[in-house]
Amino acid sequence: MLFSEVATYLNSDLQGDDLEINSMNELSLASTSQLTFAVNKKYAKELTSSKAKAFLIPQDLVEFLPEYVSYIICDDVTISMAYVTKLFAPKPIDFNALASVIGKDTYIDEMAKIEKGALIGSNVTIMAGSYVGSNAKVGNNTILYPNVTIYRDCIVGDDCIVHAGSAIGSDGFGYSHTKIGEHIKIYQNGNVIIEDDVEIGSNSSIDRAVFNSTLIKKGSKIDNLVHIAHNCEIGEYSIIAGQTGLAGSTKMGRNSVFGSQSGVAGHLEIAPFNTFAARSGVTKSIKDSGKTYAGFPLTEHRLWLKTQAKISKLNSSKV
Amino acid sequence: MLFSEVATYLNSDLQGDDLEINSMNELSLASTSQLTFAVNKKYAKELTSSKAKAFLIPQDLVEFLPEYVSYIICDDVTISMAYVTKLFAPKPIDFNALASVIGKDTYIDEMAKIEKGALIGSNVTIMAGSYVGSNAKVGNNTILYPNVTIYRDCIVGDDCIVHAGSAIGSDGFGYSHTKIGEHIKIYQNGNVIIEDDVEIGSNSSIDRAVFNSTLIKKGSKIDNLVHIAHNCEIGEYSIIAGQTGLAGSTKMGRNSVFGSQSGVAGHLEIAPFNTFAARSGVTKSIKDSGKTYAGFPLTEHRLWLKTQAKISKLNSSKV
Amino acid sequence: MLFSEVATYLNSDLQGDDLEINSMNELSLASTSQLTFAVNKKYAKELTSSKAKAFLIPQDLVEFLPEYVSYIICDDVTISMAYVTKLFAPKPIDFNALASVIGKDTYIDEMAKIEKGALIGSNVTIMAGSYVGSNAKVGNNTILYPNVTIYRDCIVGDDCIVHAGSAIGSDGFGYSHTKIGEHIKIYQNGNVIIEDDVEIGSNSSIDRAVFNSTLIKKGSKIDNLVHIAHNCEIGEYSIIAGQTGLAGSTKMGRNSVFGSQSGVAGHLEIAPFNTFAARSGVTKSIKDSGKTYAGFPLTEHRLWLKTQAKISKLNSSKV
Repeated sequence: MLFSEVATYLNSDLQGDDLEINSMNELSLASTSQLTFAVNKKYAKELTSSKAKAFLIPQDLVEFLPEYVSYIICDDVTISMAYVTKLFAPKPIDFNALASVIGKDTYIDEMAKIEKGALIGSNVTIMAGSYVGSNAKVGNNTILYPNVTIYRDCIVGDDCIVHAGSAIGSDGFGYSHTKIGEHIKIYQNGNVIIEDDVEIGSNSSIDRAVFNSTLIKKGSKIDNLVHIAHNCEIGEYSIIAGQTGLAGSTKMGRNSVFGSQSGVAGHLEIAPFNTFAARSGVTKSIKDSGKTYAGFPLTEHRLWLKTQAKISKLNSSKV
Repeated sequence: MLFSEVATYLNSDLQGDDLEINSMNELSLASTSQLTFAVNKKYAKELTSSKAKAFLIPQDLVEFLPEYVSYIICDDVTISMAYVTKLFAPKPIDFNALASVIGKDTYIDEMAKIEKGALIGSNVTIMAGSYVGSNAKVGNNTILYPNVTIYRDCIVGDDCIVHAGSAIGSDGFGYSHTKIGEHIKIYQNGNVIIEDDVEIGSNSSIDRAVFNSTLIKKGSKIDNLVHIAHNCEIGEYSIIAGQTGLAGSTKMGRNSVFGSQSGVAGHLEIAPFNTFAARSGVTKSIKDSGKTYAGFPLTEHRLWLKTQAKISKLNSSKV
Repeated sequence: MLFSEVATYLNSDLQGDDLEINSMNELSLASTSQLTFAVNKKYAKELTSSKAKAFLIPQDLVEFLPEYVSYIICDDVTISMAYVTKLFAPKPIDFNALASVIGKDTYIDEMAKIEKGALIGSNVTIMAGSYVGSNAKVGNNTILYPNVTIYRDCIVGDDCIVHAGSAIGSDGFGYSHTKIGEHIKIYQNGNVIIEDDVEIGSNSSIDRAVFNSTLIKKGSKIDNLVHIAHNCEIGEYSIIAGQTGLAGSTKMGRNSVFGSQSGVAGHLEIAPFNTFAARSGVTKSIKDSGKTYAGFPLTEHRLWLKTQAKISKLNSSKV
């Protein structure tokens, strides 16, 4: 799409030369062919060093732009950015994709749906009611139990198991909010990548990234009714027990272990080899490895036990 | 159905004239053609002013009945009421409905099921494995991703998105309990109404009302794995993040915002424009607007932070 | 399968006579035709009295074996046991089963899938997108709403209702962990048995047992988005409200009542007729009946209320 078409859509003027854009990305990751955006002065420094050539910015960031770029000045960049994501959003189904390719010794139930452009490996089992979207990939030896949904463009590796009812690649929960309290959808134009040897329980939801990929690394095991939000990155051999929820863009190292009903806030970085007891509520990044945590707010597990003992004594105290 | 048929079903005598009943409703909302009920003397005043003409009541409420009505005296009204809901329960599928009506430019996958009586708008996308029940409605431009279930008689507005695996209109969780500990199903004879511009994530469950409607008002956004119980009312432009659960009959005003893994008790009224941090547990109605809450039991967010700081100091105290 | 084949698969030597094994089981339950295992000396006494004839054990347990048995010595029994479960794991679909049997007056939507070997009762309703696996049973009068998955070999009783998207019989979350942090799947070779008159809400997950059965006893009612792990046993007429999760192998007596978003740890025994308030977190077995509990860690409800009152006073204290 031409950047001038974006300007027209936003009813704005394009500053600088017109150029071809093939997608959107965040400031730090955008390539020369991607449209990016900076919301406010906090991003001034990142803006200066961006590789992108096309920007949505507020007036007061113009001076921080790199040289020889094009831009559109927006009253509210978060709102304009949301509107523009729609321009780059693929349709739910790509009817123009090539025929799907199915490997040998693969069983696909006649009541499963494989969209065009899907690539299905060898020795795969896809049971009734399951769905593999346009241009999605399912690796060798993988099993999709009934009623699994793999959204378009998502990738499931080799030797994976996905249990009934799980949804891989549903939209991340992202909106920009207008001054009168309406919510403008930020179309989620990324995907989900599930590496090899991952098992996902039943009725779990793993959301696609807004840009780029939500990533579940190899050997990780995810239980039932788990919620993994957009742009999360789960390290290798992690274990996430039932009904745990991870908010968006959190990255955790390998062999992270979460007990049931845990919750993790968004945009955190969690060092590898940490264990979180059931119902842990993680709200800050964790730099150390090899520890066991519990509680909400989170503390080390042994401290949590001590605190709970203190709390239970409150009733007999005069406080 | 004739009220005398209800009496026969309950093995009871009908007091007063026989009359035609078309459905059931709660005391305060029942019309002249609906059967209603009063459980005990707490409802005496409401009973007196009811518009209904047909009642299930205990002996000691007879004196509070309006004039010229018919009634059945029940030993245990909660149990009799539950049994009678079954008489008015529609079958899961209405095989006698008229042919479904599909708007123009609508795509319905050949592996989606549209029951008779369904009304599907224009420019709708209904993907493989999705289900639209008898006499349900799906508005213009709406997208049902794969494996979505819209139960019979439910209504989804224009410009909505429902992600994979979500269930709209499953039965509310309602039973009457016998003295020996058995549970008699209260059939959920209402529906769900989802207004325009609502997005619902993957694997969420929105239960149909016991009578009348569970209501999600326009512009609201609901994340993955959210549980909305029967007869809830979600105000316009509300935001409900992942794994939040709302118990039955709670009503919240517009622009309510719930962080992930929040919970709300039943039968509450929550004023508009309030925000609830992740894991909030709301157990009381809220009259003020514009505040931020947290914790379980719920307090204002800044107070919660202060309390947690105090708790973390308990370990170093001598209490 | 011959025990010698197991030895070959493990690249180990068989001690004692070869014998035919038809499945695996835990030490206390294994019959003479089942393979069992003992992990360490804690199981020495159980080992001595086991009825089994085939064992996986570490070297230092050989002396505790019953007479006239066969065994394989393993460096790490938990790992070897996990590998061997795969040998006994049935395929997701049994293509060689006999034709399914469907009772009279049963409605099966043309978009539902019934695998071979399934037994469907009379007057059953199986709606579009639902799946009944190989050799599974669905009792009389039962309703499966759309997109329900009943995995192979699972049993659903008479007069049950299963709402949209629920998964009955997905694999329990069981792995053995290698020294370098990889997870070896313990194949879940048991099933789920749901007795008569059980209702299960939408998008709930009930996992199959690793050996034997996960059991939901008659008259129990389970809400939406509930997670019941492998080998749990739910007593008759229990009530489990929305988003509650039960970890593995927990057994609860009849008329157990769990409020929404409760959690129960694994391997507990909970006496009958207890009630747990919403968000209860049960981490210990409960011997008394007839009480109401709350909180995490769990206490009696009235004590929890008192403790919360004390906590709320911390802010005005000088502690």
